[in-house]
Amino acid sequence: MGTISFARGVPAPECLPVEELADCARAAIERDGRTILSYGSSGGYAPLREWIAERHRVEPARVLVTNGSLQGFVFLAQHFFAAGRGGRVLVEAPTYDRPLKILAALGAEVDALPVDEDGLEPDALAAALDAGTKPSFLYTIPTFQNPSGRTLSLERRRRLVELAREADLLVLEDDPYGLVRYEGEPLPSLFELDGGERVAYSSSFSKTIAPGTRVGYFVLPAPLEADLEALAVSTYITPALVSQATVHEFLARGNFEPNLERVRRLLGARRDAMLAALEREVPDDADWGRPDGGYFVWLDLPGEASVADLLPRAEAAGVTFVAGTDFYPRARGGASSARLAFSFVSLGEIDEGVKRLAELLRDGAAAGTTGTEAALRAGRSRG
Amino acid sequence: MGTISFARGVPAPECLPVEELADCARAAIERDGRTILSYGSSGGYAPLREWIAERHRVEPARVLVTNGSLQGFVFLAQHFFAAGRGGRVLVEAPTYDRPLKILAALGAEVDALPVDEDGLEPDALAAALDAGTKPSFLYTIPTFQNPSGRTLSLERRRRLVELAREADLLVLEDDPYGLVRYEGEPLPSLFELDGGERVAYSSSFSKTIAPGTRVGYFVLPAPLEADLEALAVSTYITPALVSQATVHEFLARGNFEPNLERVRRLLGARRDAMLAALEREVPDDADWGRPDGGYFVWLDLPGEASVADLLPRAEAAGVTFVAGTDFYPRARGGASSARLAFSFVSLGEIDEGVKRLAELLRDGAAAGTTGTEAALRAGRSRG
Repeated sequence: MGTISFARGVPAPECLPVEELADCARAAIERDGRTILSYGSSGGYAPLREWIAERHRVEPARVLVTNGSLQGFVFLAQHFFAAGRGGRVLVEAPTYDRPLKILAALGAEVDALPVDEDGLEPDALAAALDAGTKPSFLYTIPTFQNPSGRTLSLERRRRLVELAREADLLVLEDDPYGLVRYEGEPLPSLFELDGGERVAYSSSFSKTIAPGTRVGYFVLPAPLEADLEALAVSTYITPALVSQATVHEFLARGNFEPNLERVRRLLGARRDAMLAALEREVPDDADWGRPDGGYFVWLDLPGEASVADLLPRAEAAGVTFVAGTDFYPRARGGASSARLAFSFVSLGEIDEGVKRLAELLRDGAAAGTTGTEAALRAGRSRG
Repeated sequence: MGTISFARGVPAPECLPVEELADCARAAIERDGRTILSYGSSGGYAPLREWIAERHRVEPARVLVTNGSLQGFVFLAQHFFAAGRGGRVLVEAPTYDRPLKILAALGAEVDALPVDEDGLEPDALAAALDAGTKPSFLYTIPTFQNPSGRTLSLERRRRLVELAREADLLVLEDDPYGLVRYEGEPLPSLFELDGGERVAYSSSFSKTIAPGTRVGYFVLPAPLEADLEALAVSTYITPALVSQATVHEFLARGNFEPNLERVRRLLGARRDAMLAALEREVPDDADWGRPDGGYFVWLDLPGEASVADLLPRAEAAGVTFVAGTDFYPRARGGASSARLAFSFVSLGEIDEGVKRLAELLRDGAAAGTTGTEAALRAGRSRG
């Protein structure tokens, strides 16, 4: 077995409905080729916008379909912070690393709010809203968060929406994983609780159909949609309509729910395998989350061991993951944490990878060796 | 006949190889679905990068395939001017309007160089290089330029490359229309004359296959490719690989040249029709270009009539185009010019549209009426 990647937060190849999408692409182009093969609506393929709008009970003009949802985040960030305009934004810590990089590149002031097992701490949000300049928006991933796997509790969702209302704060609820739930009852989204006034919602078909389609979307207040759509026109004129029409064909054929069930079964088994392996292998003084869905388990190392120390040893031992520090603004946090993705690896790889990691954790704790020594020992133990 | 659009610089629906692309999409996903339906190379679908690299005789690592070539221009502009860093860029005047907007939004200092029938004037370039701060790059469309339809002469191409070498100036040669040639022999590109050292080259499959694929590309010096690819990762992780693989399948089947021949015949007939109609209908004191390819004829109005005056009258008379002013930085120029696109309209629409325009030009010249009066008269004359 080669290097085992707990780093790749991407679906396993078995999740991808290849044959069905091949046929959907053919059918979509045959039916609507003269529209989707030309320049067209900058806001997205009209029938797909309508499908999304209906699902979220809004007008289609409030939906912006982009080449992956990150592209939409770029537009939102440019809208507020482009041309060195400055401004403040609130994020969770830890949070998805790519938005942090986009905000840093634009020179936004990024304020990190702490997260515990129940998600973003509302008191910290309240304090951040009382102090300093009014933030342009709060970026949050309330369900099966990347990287922590954590989910904001219902009580906190209500409190967050209330705080946003009091402070007239725009909230961006990023929800790529919400439908990839393995157990438990779905919680209402912030968007639903708020009625979509102050909460913008983003998601994509990357985790429910296939990432390579690059079909993400935002549901926005109408004036903000118009502003972001203008940025889309200035950036790419028209999004990838062939992909969007392919996704729409997949939806129109009624494939969405059955495919999602299949993905849930495939990935749910991997989550179970990872949690069982962690329970079996990892020293008692480590701690980790038990997510009901999504792609990630957040591991706190035993005795606050250093992840900067562990990662090179792990790579030498043939297992990789992402260091917790990557998910904190200016790397201020996560020094003793690791993000383990179970979505891409097989059940056998999960068992073996966790075993390798656990061995390193025991080694490190027992011997107090340096990373290099431990990596050498780990390397030998594989021989 | 409703409103006739000489404004839309897009291919006529008959140009789009719908059936063939439908089959290519199906075949590409069936063959390589597990690659193209997941996250993948941020620089583009590997086989397509190789095809482009071979065509331009460079290493694939120098090719960046983006969601349309405008997206690549955004990356280049961000590379030099993001976060309010400032800097200077040289452009032709007139030039493609979308890059002007992108540069303005980033706060770049845009210096316009004049263009005559043989394209960009080299003496003006030399003078601009002697004065002021060193430009980050020169943006030029040397062949069948949008909007003027003009082509840089061979002698000027050589001179431009020499000037770039002397001044160590980066040149971006944007060449979406070069292959859409109806007569005459192809000229060497600036990229070819320069050997690809100081000249970056961008093109797309929008005009040779279909715009809706959104497959554009840049050929860049290797370090610049790496920088722009990093921006691509931060923006959309992975481009629209399904589209790129569909285009590659189309190329691999040997469809590119035959399809291009078909497009040349279809659009060449439209160019001929527009030139003949202009010759037949338009007053002698107007002037216009006779492009060997591309989508556009640039019309200089008789007696320096105002295009701001003409456009609303034309729209009232059921024919539309883009005012010359749209293609000049800060609208400083083009007040007496119009861009007429012949790519989207039928032969019958071309005849009728030019007739309507010519009537307005004669009316305006003869009566010296205001726009509103003439529009009212034009409206009546249609009844």
